[in-house]
Amino acid sequence: MKELSIKTKSRDELVDITYSVQKTVGEEKINGGLCIIYCPHSTAAVTINENADPSVKDDILKFLRRIVPADAGYAHAEGNSDAHIKASLMGNSRIVPISNGKLVLGTWEGIFFCEFDGPRSRKLLVSVLGK
Amino acid sequence: MKELSIKTKSRDELVDITYSVQKTVGEEKINGGLCIIYCPHSTAAVTINENADPSVKDDILKFLRRIVPADAGYAHAEGNSDAHIKASLMGNSRIVPISNGKLVLGTWEGIFFCEFDGPRSRKLLVSVLGK
Amino acid sequence: MKELSIKTKSRDELVDITYSVQKTVGEEKINGGLCIIYCPHSTAAVTINENADPSVKDDILKFLRRIVPADAGYAHAEGNSDAHIKASLMGNSRIVPISNGKLVLGTWEGIFFCEFDGPRSRKLLVSVLGK
Repeated sequence: MKELSIKTKSRDELVDITYSVQKTVGEEKINGGLCIIYCPHSTAAVTINENADPSVKDDILKFLRRIVPADAGYAHAEGNSDAHIKASLMGNSRIVPISNGKLVLGTWEGIFFCEFDGPRSRKLLVSVLGK
Repeated sequence: MKELSIKTKSRDELVDITYSVQKTVGEEKINGGLCIIYCPHSTAAVTINENADPSVKDDILKFLRRIVPADAGYAHAEGNSDAHIKASLMGNSRIVPISNGKLVLGTWEGIFFCEFDGPRSRKLLVSVLGK
Repeated sequence: MKELSIKTKSRDELVDITYSVQKTVGEEKINGGLCIIYCPHSTAAVTINENADPSVKDDILKFLRRIVPADAGYAHAEGNSDAHIKASLMGNSRIVPISNGKLVLGTWEGIFFCEFDGPRSRKLLVSVLGK
């Protein structure tokens, strides 16, 4: 299990982590298997989506801001209930098959760390199964 | 890792893939383990839900159309931003335990490929861990 | 694979199952690996979020009730279509890394069984991979 460090710059942000995850997979020198990307933070998440046109990321964030407003009379008094809700909606991990030592992703796909309560220093855990 | 091919017929659609996934698991001749169903497309997803009454699928699709309208002033200009958002909401993979060589699903449950930008030819990857 | 039994008390409820899952992991006497928590019910789910302030759970449930109303002209006639939709939104499983025999969770995090159509007797399956 390897740990990746991420510094986010905005309150909400999708950070492309595909290269770092692939590098970790490459270091394991396996051929086929599975890669698990896990976020141990309850106001952040992991998703996979298009990374060719950056406006896809913007549309996802804008959608989440609309359905989970920052201020909606939440009971949790720390001002980040929206971030907790967004984290559960997106999910805190992703699993990606590995073939020929590479993450199997669609042509236009990338793996994104989803920050919902930044800017912060975050970490991600990458586990690799296979041989 | 086995690849399944799927031809979808509508713009959005939940396709029951339980039989094909179980067939792939059966070919591995294992007793217990885990099955990972992975969709390498950023406008499609995988979910598990009731497959007894087909109206459950319809209600899920109708709900998603309501909260993620097809046209909502998106920045991504390809006309399928809603499909990208729906894909991240549902998630691009599912993991299912295997016991006695069978997928462990609830009595009324099925595994569904979620098409959000069809009709298209799609593929799914099925990985099986176990012995 | 171990089975956990859960009795829920309300129609919708987030039940903290962290202790039971950790106990199951401990019994496996492994050092590092992965734990998969799987819910074989199509009107329930599993999520990971803050368990320090219980109002986070309340905010998540209140949000889900708002975007997925109990009565919205659903086609499925059993009166629990909202529960099926919420289950697919949250997802029916979570995967958590194990290090030094312990689940790797953030400081304030817990694992929650999400009941959306209770009260009911439910079960959860916990699989552990590792050595």
